[in-house]
Amino acid sequence: MISKILVPTDGSKAAQKAAKYAVDLAKQLKAQVFVLSVIDKRSSISQTIPASDTARHILEPIEDYLREAAESYTEEIEKLCAKNDIRSKIVITTGHPVEEIMKEAEKLKVSLIVMGSHGRSALAATVLGSVTYGVIHKDTKIPVMVVKS
Amino acid sequence: MISKILVPTDGSKAAQKAAKYAVDLAKQLKAQVFVLSVIDKRSSISQTIPASDTARHILEPIEDYLREAAESYTEEIEKLCAKNDIRSKIVITTGHPVEEIMKEAEKLKVSLIVMGSHGRSALAATVLGSVTYGVIHKDTKIPVMVVKS
Repeated sequence: MISKILVPTDGSKAAQKAAKYAVDLAKQLKAQVFVLSVIDKRSSISQTIPASDTARHILEPIEDYLREAAESYTEEIEKLCAKNDIRSKIVITTGHPVEEIMKEAEKLKVSLIVMGSHGRSALAATVLGSVTYGVIHKDTKIPVMVVKS
Repeated sequence: MISKILVPTDGSKAAQKAAKYAVDLAKQLKAQVFVLSVIDKRSSISQTIPASDTARHILEPIEDYLREAAESYTEEIEKLCAKNDIRSKIVITTGHPVEEIMKEAEKLKVSLIVMGSHGRSALAATVLGSVTYGVIHKDTKIPVMVVKS
C-alpha cells in the first residue's frame, strides 16, 4: 500500500508539474504527501564565491532568499493538497539534494518518491536531471516515479 | 486519474517483482493492467547466428520457445490480477523492447508504465537496465515508475 509519497521540488516548472501530478496520484491513492525542498547552498553560493572568502553577511541573505523561495513553492503544493483533502506536510532542509531526499525518504518511511525528469539545474538535453538520476541510482528499495517534463 | 497501467516484463526476477508491485498499485488505484512481453529476437538469435545464415527451421523453434516462456511469465501476473479482482490483459509482441513498449503504451493509452530498474539483459552494476533507460529517455509524456531490484 502506498500511504506516504515524498515529493521533492526545487520550484522549477518541471518539478512543480511533477508535484502536481503527485497530488493527483495521492488523491487517487488516499495517500499523504510530504513536499520536500532541499536548499542546495553549493549550487547558489559556492559557484560564485569561494567558501573561504564568503563573509557571513553575504551568505545569510542568500540563504534567507532561498528559504523564502522554497517556502513559497512548497506552499503552492501544500495548498493544492488542502484543496483536494490530502494530508500534507512541508519539509525544508539544507544540504546535498540527493542525500537529503534519501535521508528524508527513509526517515518519513515513504513508500514512493515522485519527481520530475528534470529540475532547475538540468540541461534540457539530458535524459534525467542529476538529482533524479542520483535518486534512482541510490541503493534504496523505494520506487521512484519519473514524471516527464 | 491513473486507470491503465502498462507493465512490461521479460520474465526476469527483477521484472516480475516490478510487475507484482504494479498489481498492488493497480489494486489500490482500481486500475486496469496490461502485461506486456516483447520477444526480442535480436538478443536471442542474431548474436549467435547471422541473420542471413539463419534457416527457417532454426529460427522457428527459438521463437516458439520464447513465446511459450513469455506466455508463462505473463500468465503468472495475469493470475495475480485475477486473484485481486483487477482487470488485466496480456500483450505479447515481437521487436525492439523499447520501441514496442512505447508503441503499446500509446496504443493502449496507458497513464503509467511500471517497470523494474533492471531486466534480464542488464548488468547488475548499471543504474538502469537498457530497456528502462530507453523508456525514460523516450519523448513521451507518460510517467514511468521505476521499481528497484
